Amino acid sequence: MSGLDPKDLKYIFNDKGEDLIPAIIQDFGSKKVLCLYYMNEEALRRSLRSRHVWQYSRRQERVMMKGARSGHPMEIVEIVPDCTNQSLLVKVKTEGPACLTGKESCYDL
Amino acid sequence: MSGLDPKDLKYIFNDKGEDLIPAIIQDFGSKKVLCLYYMNEEALRRSLRSRHVWQYSRRQERVMMKGARSGHPMEIVEIVPDCTNQSLLVKVKTEGPACLTGKESCYDL
Repeated sequence: MSGLDPKDLKYIFNDKGEDLIPAIIQDFGSKKVLCLYYMNEEALRRSLRSRHVWQYSRRQERVMMKGARSGHPMEIVEIVPDCTNQSLLVKVKTEGPACLTGKESCYDL
Repeated sequence: MSGLDPKDLKYIFNDKGEDLIPAIIQDFGSKKVLCLYYMNEEALRRSLRSRHVWQYSRRQERVMMKGARSGHPMEIVEIVPDCTNQSLLVKVKTEGPACLTGKESCYDL
């Protein structure tokens, strides 16, 4: 996995007063945007360590591995912060649908 | 422009207690993710009306048209809300760099 290094987390979560950062999940192959998650520092740390996408669920108020239940985890190819460290672009390989509705992307309406 | 209709705004900004929604800006042709903006209802309304991307600047606390200063506005092809109406995917045609650093994308490091 290239891109973000764990040591970079201090630039993202320190000194901003923000504990959640939006993470755009994009299919590495098709370049289709799949969904947008929020990550806190723990979710990002777990994502970097496991190479699978972890998100912070605002509704459930806890970190969750995407696809843990469906058996379709997302494999991370690269995590890139934006130029101001206020959002992340997460490029993934995925086998199943990204959306809970069963569609490939949450933006497939 | 296909996708979101002005009448859909009530689903996005009502009953959520959120006045800002993240908008993923993606190049329509290359499918490259260019940046992430926030839109309030006014910015989204102006974007729909003008077909150019308006964002709400959290730093400047006002709506701004992207590229108004640089002369490179982003032309909107489509705006698609996600399955839960909590974020937007905005597909655009753009001529100049999307990033203030002069790079094509804010995720080009």
